[in-house]
Amino acid sequence: MINVLFAARDDRWETYKAPLKQAFSEAGLSVNLMREAAAEAVEYMVYAPNGPIADFRPYTNLKAVLNLWAGVEDVVGNETLKVPLCRMVDFGLTEGMVEWVVGHTLRHHLGIDAHIHGQDGVWRGGRVPPLARDRRVGILGLGALGQACAEALITLRFEVSGWSRTQKDIDGITCHSGESGLQEVLATSEILILLLPLTEGTTNTLNAETLAAMPRGAMIINPGRGPLIDDEALLDALDRGHIGHATLDVFRVEPLPPEHPFWAHRSVTVTPHIASETRPISASQVIAENVRRGEAGEPFVHVVDRKAGY
Amino acid sequence: MINVLFAARDDRWETYKAPLKQAFSEAGLSVNLMREAAAEAVEYMVYAPNGPIADFRPYTNLKAVLNLWAGVEDVVGNETLKVPLCRMVDFGLTEGMVEWVVGHTLRHHLGIDAHIHGQDGVWRGGRVPPLARDRRVGILGLGALGQACAEALITLRFEVSGWSRTQKDIDGITCHSGESGLQEVLATSEILILLLPLTEGTTNTLNAETLAAMPRGAMIINPGRGPLIDDEALLDALDRGHIGHATLDVFRVEPLPPEHPFWAHRSVTVTPHIASETRPISASQVIAENVRRGEAGEPFVHVVDRKAGY
Repeated sequence: MINVLFAARDDRWETYKAPLKQAFSEAGLSVNLMREAAAEAVEYMVYAPNGPIADFRPYTNLKAVLNLWAGVEDVVGNETLKVPLCRMVDFGLTEGMVEWVVGHTLRHHLGIDAHIHGQDGVWRGGRVPPLARDRRVGILGLGALGQACAEALITLRFEVSGWSRTQKDIDGITCHSGESGLQEVLATSEILILLLPLTEGTTNTLNAETLAAMPRGAMIINPGRGPLIDDEALLDALDRGHIGHATLDVFRVEPLPPEHPFWAHRSVTVTPHIASETRPISASQVIAENVRRGEAGEPFVHVVDRKAGY
Repeated sequence: MINVLFAARDDRWETYKAPLKQAFSEAGLSVNLMREAAAEAVEYMVYAPNGPIADFRPYTNLKAVLNLWAGVEDVVGNETLKVPLCRMVDFGLTEGMVEWVVGHTLRHHLGIDAHIHGQDGVWRGGRVPPLARDRRVGILGLGALGQACAEALITLRFEVSGWSRTQKDIDGITCHSGESGLQEVLATSEILILLLPLTEGTTNTLNAETLAAMPRGAMIINPGRGPLIDDEALLDALDRGHIGHATLDVFRVEPLPPEHPFWAHRSVTVTPHIASETRPISASQVIAENVRRGEAGEPFVHVVDRKAGY
């Protein structure tokens, strides 16, 4: 039996208990997964910031600390930690984002909502949507997530243009940068996807002026960050029908308060920050893989460079 | 100017007039597109069965007949037709089908309906769906359309199994055939897509017995043919919650009569036979390409072998 301590908060334990046990089992590992243990018995530690452990010195048989999150800023400087620290690189986060973005892009492209709302016995035939090859999709932000979404959309033959701070060069995508590049992408996007990081420069990227630059009836999908959009400006553009629909997964305040006008607006779909979550199942598989490697004497994956800090 | 006669019914003219003119223009062709013309002036004929023309002998300057549909059974035996006859192979039909199938598969996979119906101010966080790689999708029918859908779904990492009358071998898909193969696909499909041709052997492929073989809560997507499903058996399985949802694009009677229980059932989504239509825009591009070829002295595409009959 391999002794693994789950050193994160109770709510995480509820989420990860079952997926971790399944992942260990699928990896062929006999694991004793514990919430509490004598320090010297612990061989691997599943770790998250704000957990109970700050001093690693009593863990004399520890082989690795496996972080539950991508960020390690709260533990990387801990000088009592001498064994390898692995950060979470969750393939599920990217795949889940791609699935959510492609799903909602196709939903808007195909006009699926009209069918879901139109189960009234009236056969509205003959309204065939254009093909994806004739549908122009813009992506603001061409980092790992934006690029993965762009690639999935061009596989489905959407006409994709993208915008990033620094100029990118991606096969099959018209890449833009700079202020005039942003105008170009806005002006040609029937469906616009926001995947920019949140910085001072990207706050309110969609505001009254930039929304006005978009084609009438354009649809907006925001799985990036809430403050990328000026809420008031978006509501005004939706009220006037200039923007046709907005599907929003992230907000300035989360959970989105029940009185926020997005909830009641007939041209807004609110989803509860589900596009970009770390996935317990895939994250557990990453952790199990590192335990397997440790036991097999293979090098760990995603080991943090303690000097570089990530 | 190239003289093209549109020899199909008035309702088709309304649908095709604009896309044809645009396609000719995009192909750089100066075309005089006519509804009526002196027979000897006509160089190309856009043709559909049930149109006004049965005798081609007066069309002495005709270079080709360009059929609007894939089927040519009504014209292929016409002995007055001496010039090449081209059938329609509409890339838009396949692409549109793939988009519709992938869109509705992702809709069910992601549980999008719950969000569309749940805009009530309640933040239902934490319910992250599984990844596509953990979602088993079955496809009954691995012809051109079924195979194209399967390939798009495996690109998104869905776990796809398929069933066809004759055993197929397709990269990345678990292929089955025969009666036991059908049971295998049914038993493992959380989402099942019907793309079988309609024959005596495939009528009521989904019936009380085969529906019972599916996992509880499974979802069905039928863009194939209406009679592939026994409507009463499906309604019964939906009522009992054994089948979670059915999204149906095709029916035994179309338009689906307003009193049919599918319309009112909360676990059924009716779409009005839009998944597999020939697309006026892409079909017009195929026709324009053949006119361009004719004028450039290049061979036509999709020429019918008059002896083989297709």
